[in-house]
Amino acid sequence: MLDRVADKWSLLVIALLERRHLRFSELRRQIDGVSQRMLTVTLRQLERDGLVKRTVHPVVPPRVDYELTPLGATLHDTIRSLVIWTEEHQTEIAVARTEYDRRMADQVEAS
Amino acid sequence: MLDRVADKWSLLVIALLERRHLRFSELRRQIDGVSQRMLTVTLRQLERDGLVKRTVHPVVPPRVDYELTPLGATLHDTIRSLVIWTEEHQTEIAVARTEYDRRMADQVEAS
Repeated sequence: MLDRVADKWSLLVIALLERRHLRFSELRRQIDGVSQRMLTVTLRQLERDGLVKRTVHPVVPPRVDYELTPLGATLHDTIRSLVIWTEEHQTEIAVARTEYDRRMADQVEAS
Repeated sequence: MLDRVADKWSLLVIALLERRHLRFSELRRQIDGVSQRMLTVTLRQLERDGLVKRTVHPVVPPRVDYELTPLGATLHDTIRSLVIWTEEHQTEIAVARTEYDRRMADQVEAS
């Protein structure tokens, strides 16, 4: 299960759906770099896991909304803090990576 | 960055390292289903991100310990609640999946 929850696109979809229902096109616009296919697969898996509800409105053209289920809402707080953590610590991680890469390069040179 | 944090093996390693330093073989034993190669790659990425510190003790045979850095420790609480959530809601998710699969099968039959 952790496999499914620990997935970047799933985390972002759940984070976005907290505030309100969204359509497919709105989700896609708000998630940087997700392809149509990846978003379709992600939403289908989240629906199957009981975390997201998909509603088809019988209008022309048909409108499809996505929202969190009560189960999905319980996951939301946890995910939110993970997303916030990554935003807050991006710089520190970038610095750590640069230092690591330099250290590795020095080792190669020294050997 | 979310890509890196939202990774099952990374989450499990960070969750396990909270309590104490662990050696590679101890980590491997405690993480169900991780291969030697996947654990090596995961630990190297976590070290590069500045989340895990690797210490080589100059003994024979050499002993290598892994522990959380202060930055890794700040991530720990968030990850812990995600791991606990998945443990607590496994049954609900399994039920949702069974229902979803039945619904899909019914639709195929009806069409």
